[in-house]
Amino acid sequence: MLRTEVVRKILSWYEGETPGLKSNLSRLLMHGRLGGTGRMVILPVDQGFEHGPARSFAPNPAAYDPHYLYELAIESGVSGYAAPLGLLEQGADTFAGEVPLILKVNSGNSLVSNNDQALTGTVDDAMRLGCIGVGFTIYPGSECSYEMIEELREISHYAKSRGLISVVWSYPRGGKVTKDGETGTDIIAYAAHMAALMGATIIKVKLPTSHIDLDAAKSTYEKYPVDSASMAGRVKHVMQAAFNGKRVVVFSGGAAKNTSELLEEVRAIREGGGNGSIIGRNSFQRPKEEAIALLNEVMDIYS
Amino acid sequence: MLRTEVVRKILSWYEGETPGLKSNLSRLLMHGRLGGTGRMVILPVDQGFEHGPARSFAPNPAAYDPHYLYELAIESGVSGYAAPLGLLEQGADTFAGEVPLILKVNSGNSLVSNNDQALTGTVDDAMRLGCIGVGFTIYPGSECSYEMIEELREISHYAKSRGLISVVWSYPRGGKVTKDGETGTDIIAYAAHMAALMGATIIKVKLPTSHIDLDAAKSTYEKYPVDSASMAGRVKHVMQAAFNGKRVVVFSGGAAKNTSELLEEVRAIREGGGNGSIIGRNSFQRPKEEAIALLNEVMDIYS
Amino acid sequence: MLRTEVVRKILSWYEGETPGLKSNLSRLLMHGRLGGTGRMVILPVDQGFEHGPARSFAPNPAAYDPHYLYELAIESGVSGYAAPLGLLEQGADTFAGEVPLILKVNSGNSLVSNNDQALTGTVDDAMRLGCIGVGFTIYPGSECSYEMIEELREISHYAKSRGLISVVWSYPRGGKVTKDGETGTDIIAYAAHMAALMGATIIKVKLPTSHIDLDAAKSTYEKYPVDSASMAGRVKHVMQAAFNGKRVVVFSGGAAKNTSELLEEVRAIREGGGNGSIIGRNSFQRPKEEAIALLNEVMDIYS
Amino acid sequence: MLRTEVVRKILSWYEGETPGLKSNLSRLLMHGRLGGTGRMVILPVDQGFEHGPARSFAPNPAAYDPHYLYELAIESGVSGYAAPLGLLEQGADTFAGEVPLILKVNSGNSLVSNNDQALTGTVDDAMRLGCIGVGFTIYPGSECSYEMIEELREISHYAKSRGLISVVWSYPRGGKVTKDGETGTDIIAYAAHMAALMGATIIKVKLPTSHIDLDAAKSTYEKYPVDSASMAGRVKHVMQAAFNGKRVVVFSGGAAKNTSELLEEVRAIREGGGNGSIIGRNSFQRPKEEAIALLNEVMDIYS
Amino acid sequence: MLRTEVVRKILSWYEGETPGLKSNLSRLLMHGRLGGTGRMVILPVDQGFEHGPARSFAPNPAAYDPHYLYELAIESGVSGYAAPLGLLEQGADTFAGEVPLILKVNSGNSLVSNNDQALTGTVDDAMRLGCIGVGFTIYPGSECSYEMIEELREISHYAKSRGLISVVWSYPRGGKVTKDGETGTDIIAYAAHMAALMGATIIKVKLPTSHIDLDAAKSTYEKYPVDSASMAGRVKHVMQAAFNGKRVVVFSGGAAKNTSELLEEVRAIREGGGNGSIIGRNSFQRPKEEAIALLNEVMDIYS
Repeated sequence: MLRTEVVRKILSWYEGETPGLKSNLSRLLMHGRLGGTGRMVILPVDQGFEHGPARSFAPNPAAYDPHYLYELAIESGVSGYAAPLGLLEQGADTFAGEVPLILKVNSGNSLVSNNDQALTGTVDDAMRLGCIGVGFTIYPGSECSYEMIEELREISHYAKSRGLISVVWSYPRGGKVTKDGETGTDIIAYAAHMAALMGATIIKVKLPTSHIDLDAAKSTYEKYPVDSASMAGRVKHVMQAAFNGKRVVVFSGGAAKNTSELLEEVRAIREGGGNGSIIGRNSFQRPKEEAIALLNEVMDIYS
Repeated sequence: MLRTEVVRKILSWYEGETPGLKSNLSRLLMHGRLGGTGRMVILPVDQGFEHGPARSFAPNPAAYDPHYLYELAIESGVSGYAAPLGLLEQGADTFAGEVPLILKVNSGNSLVSNNDQALTGTVDDAMRLGCIGVGFTIYPGSECSYEMIEELREISHYAKSRGLISVVWSYPRGGKVTKDGETGTDIIAYAAHMAALMGATIIKVKLPTSHIDLDAAKSTYEKYPVDSASMAGRVKHVMQAAFNGKRVVVFSGGAAKNTSELLEEVRAIREGGGNGSIIGRNSFQRPKEEAIALLNEVMDIYS
Repeated sequence: MLRTEVVRKILSWYEGETPGLKSNLSRLLMHGRLGGTGRMVILPVDQGFEHGPARSFAPNPAAYDPHYLYELAIESGVSGYAAPLGLLEQGADTFAGEVPLILKVNSGNSLVSNNDQALTGTVDDAMRLGCIGVGFTIYPGSECSYEMIEELREISHYAKSRGLISVVWSYPRGGKVTKDGETGTDIIAYAAHMAALMGATIIKVKLPTSHIDLDAAKSTYEKYPVDSASMAGRVKHVMQAAFNGKRVVVFSGGAAKNTSELLEEVRAIREGGGNGSIIGRNSFQRPKEEAIALLNEVMDIYS
Repeated sequence: MLRTEVVRKILSWYEGETPGLKSNLSRLLMHGRLGGTGRMVILPVDQGFEHGPARSFAPNPAAYDPHYLYELAIESGVSGYAAPLGLLEQGADTFAGEVPLILKVNSGNSLVSNNDQALTGTVDDAMRLGCIGVGFTIYPGSECSYEMIEELREISHYAKSRGLISVVWSYPRGGKVTKDGETGTDIIAYAAHMAALMGATIIKVKLPTSHIDLDAAKSTYEKYPVDSASMAGRVKHVMQAAFNGKRVVVFSGGAAKNTSELLEEVRAIREGGGNGSIIGRNSFQRPKEEAIALLNEVMDIYS
Repeated sequence: MLRTEVVRKILSWYEGETPGLKSNLSRLLMHGRLGGTGRMVILPVDQGFEHGPARSFAPNPAAYDPHYLYELAIESGVSGYAAPLGLLEQGADTFAGEVPLILKVNSGNSLVSNNDQALTGTVDDAMRLGCIGVGFTIYPGSECSYEMIEELREISHYAKSRGLISVVWSYPRGGKVTKDGETGTDIIAYAAHMAALMGATIIKVKLPTSHIDLDAAKSTYEKYPVDSASMAGRVKHVMQAAFNGKRVVVFSGGAAKNTSELLEEVRAIREGGGNGSIIGRNSFQRPKEEAIALLNEVMDIYS
């Protein structure tokens, strides 16, 4: 399939990058059912690390098997599949080249309570496994905030030099951020902006609520209001914070919910100009046919 | 001896790995009395570091001599021998090539009380001594958790690049894990899953009890119950958490106990689909003939 | 344009430096409306990182787009443009060679409250993007003070070896420095002196007030008074502390203020012998035409 | 002199090591009055660092001069001389090749009170000065315990790769170790065992008392008693913990004492199978003739 | 000028060093009015970093200009000039080869209160600027003590390998050292001894008082008294602690004082066998002619 106009336009925004990185970004944008639309749906499976295996896979035990997750990503026609080292290794050969892979190179777990993550993979691993890029989580605001940002800088710098894209999970927490504030409009916009300033290729944030969290930001939002009453309006503001929409931003839905709520969110993302969704538990915790049907409903909206 | 069907199948799970690493894993799986069965018994001797020499070797003073430990591993026909640097060096030449060796590259001691271990060997040492792999302990949950995981990542990455397997002792403790929880079913399954996600070749965990430790996991286990009343059922759940049984998992028996209890545990491991046992104090603290007899009873069960 | 006498004189002060570094400093001194005068106005845009996107760009939403900021720097005729990685990347190709670029390689944010910054760019990034130098903030006095100074040493050493200039934001805070003291005459002079001793090519400090902060310095300033009643007198003392005026020092104006106050400050900087201004929010938060007009009024004073 | 049977036997224990390391160990074992006996007396002079110059050298001011210490080591016929960088440098040329040298590469001082030492020399320094090996102190149990062990691992690994022996001062303190426990039989045996597991070529411990310190070890020592009433019995147990006597272990006498007490200790070391003594203050704090006479009395016992 | 007998003798003490290092030490010993005498006076200007510019240079504002400091060092005929990076760079070309330069590679400042310093220069900088060596401050006893010692070890090792001398400012403080103790006889002797053990080429300490600080050292000084009543006697003891006078030791005078007190101190240094003085504020804070006159009075005493 020839590269579409919209994909060519998106690639043109990444003018600081090498042809290698643009090729990998292009692979992601041209793959699957949404290939060529400038939108994407990514299947992420890092919940086994974050919440433990049973909480992640017991609702649909077939998903304990790494091959199942590859098959779900391939058969559903999503744009890419993101997971930690072990999951990607177990299938990397069998499914080589069948779906764009993103190696999540840091991970937290539920046994410790600080706001940090451990490095659990490397850019070299990503290249060895044929990935198009690496994923990295930062917690701006946390006590480990600057350290995580510096780790991202090093990993991202090395990844770029090898033509790999970086996908940044930007999740503020701790510090001056309240619990509700973690999804406040100002905080999510700030999170997206910081990831963009760090040189992220793709930015992943949570869907924002209408809450404004930082005192220092309140007068600004009063004086220059955004359409924060609607989800689409809030998504639009987040896109604005991402270099006026010139960075690819995808949104995560969070915990499993019913289908109509999920689809409503997807419509708002599309309407606000967001580039797509990351859908994990809502897909791999359902039986395969049901999951594929849902992912296709989502992709129908983005098409 | 030609590689058996079951060993070929196990090797096929490690599709992300180099032929070098598969060769070393194959050496372990094809060695000793259980060679070719897909099961293994490993002799570990790191108790001198962990508990001190007298508590480890006074019951059978012949074991103070490193050559004795090599002889026990070779004469009993176990699958491999794992120990810290000094013990392997003292015998590496005399017994070169007679038993697969695993260099334990980190170690704790009983004089300090934090949940950490010190690096006490290197991958280069393992290669110099002709080992097939390295062993590493992590304490998920402890205050040093993420640091240990990052050390593992570096060591494992380098070991893999040199064709050496990694054996991960995954022992949660500290953090949100209670004392009883260290062997809870949810915690052991989580421990095995994290080691698998880290890319461990072989996973070593303790035998699980029927306890469920994390509050966040309780509702999951209520909704999707596992057969936690029987040891075999719990082992089966742990294997499920290890990529649906597609990673080699061995279980440790812990402190010395009577022979019939030990054998009962071994039967449960076999029944639950576990790959084998690590048996230390229960072997080297008995006179050699007695130890060899016991190890053979264990291997009879796995055969 | 041939190098002017005053620029030749300024370059002669940097006698420890390579021709490569002098070439890049010369590019900055010869560019834009103030080219050849020995004075400069720099457009810095790191407020998105420091204060968040809405507080920075909502007053003039066109500035959310990185290309707008390049255009503002180019059309206004300022001497250079300084920003974090993402902002420079997005435009580096489109505007290649049209304005001297300075990559700000460390950044703080408003979600954490300690006196530190994270490394967010590298000297290699600066070279890849065609920058003439790197910018770095230090907080002398803070708990991270010596660590930041050591990071500067490494970055500055490497930058120099590649012919890139270093611009040091020297902002004392914390430690023995009171809140008012952060802009005290003694503290600003000390800040400029430390940056000079570190080998900074260009020093950026805040405009000093008449306050003297350190007890240990009070008797000195009583015995050897400086003309601290006038801004020009205070600027003159700061220039003295910068190797008797033999280092380029630029002053920042801080939060947006009215035009006449700003121009008054600029006149004092010129009168005191300062080399120029760094003007951020006062330019990019106004509509483009208004901003260009203001920057030209400023440059008229320096001409 | 041809290598003796006993030295050949000792070298055979170090089967994991290179010919280079064995050559250097052989040099030490074949040097001086005890050359060829498998026993050794080493002159250590690190007290200037540990306790200060006056407390070390004022009783015999000639020892302030580094050349004096070389002369004492050479004229007395001891097996080797161990000291920090500065002392070895000042004489390395004058006395090149006249006595085996051991560079002590970490050192503490009496001005700080934590249980740590600073690295004060390198393996490269040792090679530059023609040393046969390096010395390193660890404090198992202390808050810096694991860090010191990791430093030892790195230094020892590099030293071995260059054919240099490592002499480990294993001095438990802090953590679960009581003040009296620092010389308890269980603790000294544990200290020797850990050094052996770390791959130490030569182990240096203090002479043990009959005290048993760790609660966890008491039942073991009750059930499997060692001859802890006599010094020779305790030394024998320590040798057992050192790979059943297959590592060279030397004992330190500690603070200056009268001659007959010292000689009694030496007889116990010999009787218990220890390899020798490290004698510092008891030699260099006496006039040279007196010191040489004493060292010869000691060596007479070991001969 | 041919090397004198006394310089040849001093060089012979540095027998562990390369011809490159000896050449640089020789350059220092043969330069200026005291060239060839084995004595030296060094001009240090690090007070701008340590105390701020006004406290350092306001009494004689000409000294704000780095060229003035070079001229003072050259015109007065002192042996060498020591300063941080920025000061040496600004003049390195103009005065290339006219006076031996020592780059001070770490620096503290008055805005922070801990007992540490930041690295502010490198050995490579020293070579680039044509320096004969590097200067480094350690604070034995402080909470950063061992870390500073390890930094010194690394810098000194690299400097030596490049033929550069190391000048160690050994200033005990913190830990077990009382405020008065910082200049106690035992502490200064210990400071000099530790610097010698670290392999320092030249040792810089403060002039000692008759105070004895460490309890553990008091009985030694009672039993083996030094002539601590006279400054010359105390200097003599410090020289003894510096390898029996076989290391070059220079003394600092501290804060500005009247000329006769200063000269009296110099006479005591000469009488006690010290190698010279480091004279900063007492020279650069006076008008140039006055400073040169004073430095010559000092050098007259040492001649």
